[in-house]
Amino acid sequence: MAPPAVRSVLPVVLLGCGGVGRQLLRHIVSCRPLHANQGVAIRVVGVADSSSLLVAEDLHSNGLDDALLSDLCTAKSTGSPLSALLARGQCQLFSNSEARRKVLDTASVLGKTTGLVLVDCSATYDTVSMLKDAVDCGCCVVLANKKPLTCAYKDFEKLVSNFRRIRFESTVGAGLPVIASVTRIIASGDPVSRIVGSLSGTLGYVMSELEDGKRFSEVVKTAKSLGYTEPDPRDDLSGMDVARKALILARLLGQRISMEDINVESLYPSELGPDAMSTKEFLESGLAQLDKSIEERVKSASLKGNVLRYVCKIESTGCQVGIQEVPKNSALGRLRGSDNVVEIYSRCYENAPLVIQGAGAGNDTTAAGVLADIVDLQDLFLKTA
Amino acid sequence: MAPPAVRSVLPVVLLGCGGVGRQLLRHIVSCRPLHANQGVAIRVVGVADSSSLLVAEDLHSNGLDDALLSDLCTAKSTGSPLSALLARGQCQLFSNSEARRKVLDTASVLGKTTGLVLVDCSATYDTVSMLKDAVDCGCCVVLANKKPLTCAYKDFEKLVSNFRRIRFESTVGAGLPVIASVTRIIASGDPVSRIVGSLSGTLGYVMSELEDGKRFSEVVKTAKSLGYTEPDPRDDLSGMDVARKALILARLLGQRISMEDINVESLYPSELGPDAMSTKEFLESGLAQLDKSIEERVKSASLKGNVLRYVCKIESTGCQVGIQEVPKNSALGRLRGSDNVVEIYSRCYENAPLVIQGAGAGNDTTAAGVLADIVDLQDLFLKTA
Repeated sequence: MAPPAVRSVLPVVLLGCGGVGRQLLRHIVSCRPLHANQGVAIRVVGVADSSSLLVAEDLHSNGLDDALLSDLCTAKSTGSPLSALLARGQCQLFSNSEARRKVLDTASVLGKTTGLVLVDCSATYDTVSMLKDAVDCGCCVVLANKKPLTCAYKDFEKLVSNFRRIRFESTVGAGLPVIASVTRIIASGDPVSRIVGSLSGTLGYVMSELEDGKRFSEVVKTAKSLGYTEPDPRDDLSGMDVARKALILARLLGQRISMEDINVESLYPSELGPDAMSTKEFLESGLAQLDKSIEERVKSASLKGNVLRYVCKIESTGCQVGIQEVPKNSALGRLRGSDNVVEIYSRCYENAPLVIQGAGAGNDTTAAGVLADIVDLQDLFLKTA
Repeated sequence: MAPPAVRSVLPVVLLGCGGVGRQLLRHIVSCRPLHANQGVAIRVVGVADSSSLLVAEDLHSNGLDDALLSDLCTAKSTGSPLSALLARGQCQLFSNSEARRKVLDTASVLGKTTGLVLVDCSATYDTVSMLKDAVDCGCCVVLANKKPLTCAYKDFEKLVSNFRRIRFESTVGAGLPVIASVTRIIASGDPVSRIVGSLSGTLGYVMSELEDGKRFSEVVKTAKSLGYTEPDPRDDLSGMDVARKALILARLLGQRISMEDINVESLYPSELGPDAMSTKEFLESGLAQLDKSIEERVKSASLKGNVLRYVCKIESTGCQVGIQEVPKNSALGRLRGSDNVVEIYSRCYENAPLVIQGAGAGNDTTAAGVLADIVDLQDLFLKTA
């Protein structure tokens, strides 16, 4: 049987080809038959890394072909620059300084005909101004990068000014349908009063291991050896990554707040911070200084039938990120390993929350969430002819 | 500050004004300011009950006004017919026999200009042919009614032939984002291998109460007195409602199966069925005959650290609905009261499933899910001028 006619063509420019970006390109290529069956075609017309931008020569053709995208993934994963792909033809290369203008030109050319989806899988603040300009050109934006949503409030407001043209599921809980579900609840007029969640796989693992009586320093080192933490575990222990996710959720609920309005508990004091000592020193001598106070908190919680979790709590009265005692028998308290969990309270979910739980990290899951976001924009890209 | 311009106008015809339909109309009215802020306007151009259809006289105006919709809810909840609203003007009444033609005329008139969303909140098979014809006219369809999706496979296939024009979140787990989440996972190319769920609040309550050593007959009678069951509890105990939800999920996963392919375990034998005895007889003498065998199953499960749950299980090898032993400590085993829970297994959620849990019944929650579905269609109703 012939596949159905293509109803929607989505031209995509990808910013960032680290682990998530490369996985997204692989997903796009492997999903071609599936999407063709759904009447959807995704055209990758450009890919940027931190130093340059590769753009299809003919923007109105089918974009960069799948063989080139596969080679691009291989090249990037072995550390080659995008320029290594130039010999393949069909594309042009632009330096970092030209990239922004070229993306906007592309947006402007395609915006009038087919539209463009700008997908940000980088981890930098540098894309914000480009994204804002793209929104002005009528582009759609899909983010795995949390930073454009956690910078100044006016930038956030600008990015979400046409809320149907932006998606950012993978910024919170990777592919877990948290943003999509909260958006549905809000759209149905059911006011969300509270969101409580464990949104760091790393800190979720650390906190649940503490229950078994292990020492904090020992658990953090194990987490690092398992690849669960950043190279400097203080990047996780600071709570800033969780705070960014909390800010995105709070802003989604309509709160006009910024990072400085969030009460964030760091798991280490500034005397043990990156300004005071190296990662090596922290791991060898700093970390163990934290064991006693954490052990006392674990014991004190346990006496009340509680356990410690590193939690974000978003309420109308404010937004907090830090260690909380929660009942051992609650959705949060039962959490083990690196799963994320989110509890959403509203009029419809007042006594018992709506709970969403599952893997909240990993390139595969994060990229899958980004791809679902792109496909969800398809009604804005219907072929008119 | 002036509200943003209206970007999408969604004309709606509602089929069914029982509890869910009336709650939907109330939600639509109370959400007007919220939706205006999102650039969305919902116009109710017609409402049908089982005997007649009320349609706005001027289809291109703002539809039936909010005062009329409120009066309609009051009239229907006190048992008055739709004709009682005729004195209010602005609308025309059609008998049941004329209703289908009028809905299709409306669809056809609006389809060419603004489009139409047909919302089925009834609980009958009677709407199927009307819905199919509406799909042919290019209408969108939103269902709380499970029956159109659980009839012959070819009817299902027809209804979902343009998958972006149909939504049916509230057919499974009421407003819980189950269908939306599964759809996202599928769209991202992550193949769903298994769905396991407890999708009946009534049977969830019954099963969790059995753990405390209560007798089955006693628990069912309590559930009935709390209003958790249908007037004849056998409508719940037969498992047919759960089987319909399982069929919808299985078909969503691409399985070309029908009700007769599902292995459904009824909690009563045919000797105690509606053909053999009245509801009163069943409650007074039939029900207690089931206590002993259920008690034995509860005990046998308990010895293995398990509990009984009434579960649906959808796998590539088949679809089963019935009592299962599950570990006391699993998401299903921990379920208490009338919450629903769904575990979704896929490549991304392979070792630990994606879990969605929360209230899965009630007019408010069900209608909220329907409204979120309607709003989600807005990109197909963009104003072009």
